[in-house]
Order: sequence, then C-alpha cells, then structure tokens
Amino acid sequence: MSEFNHKDLLSMEDLSVRDIDLILNTAGSLREISLREIKKVPTLRGKSVVHFFYEPSTRTRTSFEMAAKRLSADTMSLSATGSSIVKGETLVDTARNLQAMNPDLIVLRHPASGAPQLLAREVEACVINAGDGIHEHPTQALLDLYTIREKKGGIEGLDVAIIGDIAHSRVARSNIIGLRKMGARVTVSGPPTMIPFEAESLGVRVECDPAEAVRDKDVVMILRIQLERQSRVIFPSLREYATHFGLNRERLKRAKPDAIIMHPGPMNRGVEIASEVADGPYSVILEQVANGVAVRMALLYLLIGGSKRGDMD
Amino acid sequence: MSEFNHKDLLSMEDLSVRDIDLILNTAGSLREISLREIKKVPTLRGKSVVHFFYEPSTRTRTSFEMAAKRLSADTMSLSATGSSIVKGETLVDTARNLQAMNPDLIVLRHPASGAPQLLAREVEACVINAGDGIHEHPTQALLDLYTIREKKGGIEGLDVAIIGDIAHSRVARSNIIGLRKMGARVTVSGPPTMIPFEAESLGVRVECDPAEAVRDKDVVMILRIQLERQSRVIFPSLREYATHFGLNRERLKRAKPDAIIMHPGPMNRGVEIASEVADGPYSVILEQVANGVAVRMALLYLLIGGSKRGDMD
Amino acid sequence: MSEFNHKDLLSMEDLSVRDIDLILNTAGSLREISLREIKKVPTLRGKSVVHFFYEPSTRTRTSFEMAAKRLSADTMSLSATGSSIVKGETLVDTARNLQAMNPDLIVLRHPASGAPQLLAREVEACVINAGDGIHEHPTQALLDLYTIREKKGGIEGLDVAIIGDIAHSRVARSNIIGLRKMGARVTVSGPPTMIPFEAESLGVRVECDPAEAVRDKDVVMILRIQLERQSRVIFPSLREYATHFGLNRERLKRAKPDAIIMHPGPMNRGVEIASEVADGPYSVILEQVANGVAVRMALLYLLIGGSKRGDMD
Repeated sequence: MSEFNHKDLLSMEDLSVRDIDLILNTAGSLREISLREIKKVPTLRGKSVVHFFYEPSTRTRTSFEMAAKRLSADTMSLSATGSSIVKGETLVDTARNLQAMNPDLIVLRHPASGAPQLLAREVEACVINAGDGIHEHPTQALLDLYTIREKKGGIEGLDVAIIGDIAHSRVARSNIIGLRKMGARVTVSGPPTMIPFEAESLGVRVECDPAEAVRDKDVVMILRIQLERQSRVIFPSLREYATHFGLNRERLKRAKPDAIIMHPGPMNRGVEIASEVADGPYSVILEQVANGVAVRMALLYLLIGGSKRGDMD
Repeated sequence: MSEFNHKDLLSMEDLSVRDIDLILNTAGSLREISLREIKKVPTLRGKSVVHFFYEPSTRTRTSFEMAAKRLSADTMSLSATGSSIVKGETLVDTARNLQAMNPDLIVLRHPASGAPQLLAREVEACVINAGDGIHEHPTQALLDLYTIREKKGGIEGLDVAIIGDIAHSRVARSNIIGLRKMGARVTVSGPPTMIPFEAESLGVRVECDPAEAVRDKDVVMILRIQLERQSRVIFPSLREYATHFGLNRERLKRAKPDAIIMHPGPMNRGVEIASEVADGPYSVILEQVANGVAVRMALLYLLIGGSKRGDMD
Repeated sequence: MSEFNHKDLLSMEDLSVRDIDLILNTAGSLREISLREIKKVPTLRGKSVVHFFYEPSTRTRTSFEMAAKRLSADTMSLSATGSSIVKGETLVDTARNLQAMNPDLIVLRHPASGAPQLLAREVEACVINAGDGIHEHPTQALLDLYTIREKKGGIEGLDVAIIGDIAHSRVARSNIIGLRKMGARVTVSGPPTMIPFEAESLGVRVECDPAEAVRDKDVVMILRIQLERQSRVIFPSLREYATHFGLNRERLKRAKPDAIIMHPGPMNRGVEIASEVADGPYSVILEQVANGVAVRMALLYLLIGGSKRGDMD
C-alpha cells in the first residue's frame, strides 16, 4: 500500500505525483461519510487539532473544522485577535507554546508567506498550511485537482486557463504547481499588473486577452478579486476589471463546450464572474466546496490517522 | 403520535396550535436532561449544527450550543466578523457554500428581516431563525409559551400585557402571534412612538398607560429597551423612559396578585424594569432562560432527530 | 484519601498546604494523558464547562480548553465582545443567566479584581478564576508550583526571586502567596514604582538591584512587562526597562548555578528577558505551559469529577 511520508502539508512543491494521487484517492473514499445519516467516524478520536487563523475565513476554517469533527477529532480555534499576538509574542514563541500543550495537528493561516514552514520546523505536531500570504494554499489546489479529476476523469493532458490576479494569488500559485505536476497545460490571463514577471518560468503560457486565453480549454478557473486588498492599487476600478476581465458567457464562448468553471470563493458576482456563469450548467463551484471537506479529511487522516487506519467503520 | 411536518422553524406564523403543543410537550420531556449528573444523550450524535450569528448574543447562542451539545450534536460557530461577509459575498452564496458542506441544521441570527426565509429556500439543511431584524424570534416566543404554560397550567384564556418598544421588537411580534394562536388575550403598552400603527390588526389591545395595561393580567412581559439601538431616537432619555414606562412594584399593583413577570433579557435594571420586580417572587425570568435550553433541544430533536427518535436513553 | 473540599478555585489564599499538595499530586497522575496516542479519558463526559473571557488570552484559554477536552467535558467559549456585556447587563445578571443553563463549571477571566468571587456567590456551578484584574491568577501559581516541585524535588526551603512589575501582577501575587504557604522564601525586585508599598507585609524581601535579588536563588521568576498596559506610565521606556531590569546571563550570574528560570508568557524577548536566558539550559518556560494543562485537568477533576473518580481508564 502506498504511504504518505510527510510530517506536514506545507506546499504543492513538496508533493510527488504519487502523494497527490494518494490524497485524492483517500478523499474519494472518505467523501461519502459527509452524505451519511450519521456523518461521523471514530478514526481520530482523542486527537486534537488546533485551527490557528491570523486572517478571517469562513469557508476554509469551517471546512477544516467539519473535516476534523467528522473524523471525531477534538478541535480548538484560535484567532489573531484575542491571542498573544496582540501582546507582542513572536510566531516562534507562540508555536513552541502550542507545542507544549501537545496538539496532534495545527492548521495555520497567516498573512506572511513562509509562516507555516517556520511553524513546522518548531513543532512536533503536524502542520497544514491553510494559506500563507501570497505563497501557497495547497489544500485549495488539492480540492481543485480532486474536482477536475472527478469531472474530467483525469488531469493529465487537460488544458486549463486561470484568469485573474495571478501575481498575488496563492490559489493560482498552488494550482499551477499541482496542475503542472499532474501533466496539465496551464494558460494564465489577467491585467498586465497582475501577471508575475516569472510566469513563464512556472511553465505556464501567458495570454493577455481572457477570451483568447480560454480557447479550447477543458477547465476555466476564475480567481477572486481581493476587494479588501489590492484592488485600488492594481487597476483603476472594479467596473473596469469587470468590463475587461470579468468572465461572462460571451467571453467564455471559445472554451470547449463542456469546459468546467471553477472559482475558489467567495465570489464577487458581476466583477470577476457573471452570475450566468457562476450559476450555469458547467459551474462546479459548489462541488469544490463539498470536495474541500473530503480532501481535508483525507489530509487529517494521512497525517495523524496513523495507527488507527483500519478504524473507519 | 403527532408529527412535526416542517423542514425549518422560521416564524410563529408558520406553526399550528398542534405544532406548538408538540414542541412544548417535547421540551417538557427533554427538560430533565439538563438536571442530570451526566447532561448528555446520544440522540443527535453525528449531526452537525452550524450557529451563524450576524449579531452579537450571549444568551441565545449559548442556549442553542448547550442544547445541541446535550443531544451530542457537533456544533460550529460562525460570526459575521471573520466570515466571507466582510469579503462581499451575498447571503445566498454563503448559504449555498454552507450547504455544500452538508450540515444538518443552521441556526441563523441576522439583522435583516426575512434572512432566514431566504436561507431556508437555498439550503437542504434545516434552518432555525434565532432572530431576524425586527421580524420574528420564534424560539424566544416558544420558551415564553412554555414558561407561561408551566406556571399557569395552560395558555388559553389568559390575559397578557406586553410593555415596551412593541414596534421594533421581534420578541413582541413572535409572542403576540403565539399567544393569540394559543387563545390568550394580549394588551400592549409603550410610548406612542413604540406602538405600531397596525397594532390592532394583530389582534391586540393598545393601552398607553402601562399601569392600566397590566390591570387584571395573568402575565406581564417587559421588553428590553435596546440601549445600543433606537433609544436616542425614539424617546428623549433613558431616565424619561424609566419614569414613565419602567415597571416597578407600584406600577404593577393592578395586575393579578399572582401575575408572573417575564423579560427576554438582557435586562437594563432601573430602566425598563426595577430590581424589586426583576428579583421579586413572581419573576420567572431565570426560568425562561432554563426553559430556553429545553425548547431548543426540542426543536433540534423534532427537526433533525429523525430516525433516531427512540434513542433518548 | 485526601479530599478537596472547595466549590470553587478563586485564590491561592483559600488553599491549604494539603489542598495544594492534592492538586499537584492529581496533576502528576493526569500529566501522562497528554502524552498518550489517544489523549482523552471519559472522566467528565456529559459535564459542561463554560470559558468566559473578558480579556484576550491564547495561552490560558487554550490550556483550559485542552484540559477540559482531554477529560471529555463539553466546552463553550464566551468572550466579552459578542456578549450581553456590550448590551449593558451586569455581571451578576450574566452569571444568573449562565447558571440557569446548568453548566457544571465556569472559568472566568475578568479585568475587575474580585469578579470571580462575585460570580461564585451567585452560581451553583463551580468557578475557576483564570485571572482577575491585578488580584490573583491561581492556576498560574499552581502550575508554577508544580514545575518547581518537579524540578527541585520540593518547594519547602527554596529561595525564589520574582523580578518585574510586582505591584500590578496577579501572577506575582498568587505565586507569593503559594510559595510562602509551601515554605519557600521570596525576594522581589523591580523599579521602585513597581514594588507595592505593603510588599514586606506579604512576607517577602525587597531588593532593588535585580542582579543582587537573584543571588543564591534556586528559582528566578521573570514577570512579563505588560506592553499593552502600564508601560508608558510607570517607567520611561522599554529600552530603559531592558537596560536596568532585563534578565540576561550576566545579570543572572549570582543565582545558584542550577537555578531554574521561569516566565508566565507571553515573553517580550529583549525586554524583560534576554533570548540567551529564555532559550538557555535552565529555562523551564515551556514545561510551565505543558504543566498548565495537567494542573487545569486536575482542578476540573477535583471540582466536578465527583462521583466519577474511579473512571480514569
């Protein structure tokens, strides 16, 4: 049986094709637990999972908590407000303190790129990166890969377009790495200020016109415009973004007729995505959310399910 | 056996007399669980309940969480800060996303009247309205009905006064509907700016003088003045409110000698209610709180206890 | 068998030497649960513990929650924001309301000295003081005593220095009381504005020079400078504090060669403590954190473990 030989899940960079396959297969077998009458198995009973979120998040935190509870782990939630951070403690000291309480796993979201790596070096507990700065968001990429594989029967050889703020998106970065590893071709598109200089070194093609970027694609992934962050800096207005880069039916017409539409959420309807697209027949946006719980259950199981692996009744 | 044929609990309007009786009877049989040494039954094991509060609340959220935990459900708590709302997502999209994670029940408190109805239409999960704008707060009305029935042996034929900001109170509205359905007569009183124009169309009598409004009543329900909201707009000062509408022993003397005194909490002592009344022998304010847990357990049980109904050991 | 005859844990003042021994011994036997593969025993199944924190805290709240969960209690967390406090309710009314929901134990942190005593008088539930104003922080003192006893083999006859803002520290106060009861000698040091007038009436020696205060000590306890509170008032600058009172290796050289270094956290490295000391071989700072979980498990067990005492499998 194939084994997952990692203490932590920090980035898509760290994962082999085999690792990714193992995670997606495990998610596949855990998926149905969320559809049962009794949505709970005792697999992680007595394990403690700490969710440490320095940035707000409904979707990701809720998804992780659901995943942990469905596996019967104990969960605790810490946020940056109400924590020692406001008291001037360093991340390393906070990490060592958490470790002293012997949690089994820490899920960290942090505004600083690399924070989970730092944490992982300091603690014995397993660490999952739930998004670090503009670096990576590997669990998002894994749930996207899961969704693509389920919808398209595989990932190898697919053509994928990613549209939006490629340069500042950890979702884009993790997906590009994951898709390339799994043998997909990736084209990115967005305003010039949102395309990283080194884009081609990531093995992707750059196409400025989004309507052209989606041509003949199997998958179109639309990124969220971070209203609360860079918008006012990087392009003149939301209206302008919507006009030139917002994905509507018209702009998607050159994609393959059965191309699936993805978005990591939360969506800004009428900005980066038109409602006719978000709610259209090829949108898999809500399946991404559902698959997110399964992928996170798989990661918890692979990282800390250890000796209990036979125990999924 | 009488059955509860509702997916959601959204308003008192939706409930029949039979529904209300079923809820109160179920609460009656669950009440004693909270008095046991081991305050927990496995009835809702493996069910997940999401508490989604867009407005702050100790009492209501804590009461719901206690209720869920005593029935062994898994609980998760989301608040508006720290959620996708700050990121500009619509309530409908948030709802669909939550649904994609397959919770069994969502408890929603929201500042917009009608928000729970909107949510309920979008999700397969059961929805309980924990207070929506100035519309309804049905679980509060149900715990009030439970308390009245327990104290007075029944509700039909009772005379009830409700004193305070009738126009802007979801507690008043839900109670008026429930009390009328159960056959009680209701008189309301408060400053003219706090009495809704359509008061009489709700089937209640209006009496401006609170001392007169309580005459011969079996139940006096005192509403909380929302210090944090309308006070400065609707009447000149708290002192003035206390002087003219605050319920003290003197102002209550025309009520029946055994009239019970109710308040949904949190109280502003010395404003809408004098301490001599709040702490007096006929105050049932703390019993309301205790009964609130039982009524919420009953609702969770009736809505999602489904096939597990034989399982309350 | 020795018994713990207290409803609450409010202050070190209330505890006898026998009580303290019982708590530390119980912590000793519970300590290893946190090191197991399955970190959970069913001892407090069906008990509900409410964590009510009016002041932010990672360490203390997390430690209490971990302790409760490892004993299988249900936990609920309330904070001052999002609670009835913002709605103008008194602490006594909040307390009575909580009590009406029948929790088994309430953990309270509050900015007002004496708040836990007030709460304890109003509720049937057991109350643990998790820090009240500048009064006491008894669970911190108990975990410090546990750590000292474990490291030094006993407490009686030891020489202990406490350095920092003695006058405004509830940690200092609780430790002084506990250390004196257990037969240790205590010397305090800090800027004159941080030494309480009545210091000698507490049975401690005052020594202004910190390098002299540590002379021949077995234990050096360094207090946290409360950056977020008094600093700008009580001494000119952090730099000045660090220069004159910050504990570095040089300033510690007169302590016994095997003196242990303690700090309640979170640390301000480079202010009250140099990194060479915090991370040095005699630092027991992280053991304090680990022991904190065990001491809190012991208190939960002694206060509400009642009839279940044989049940620690």
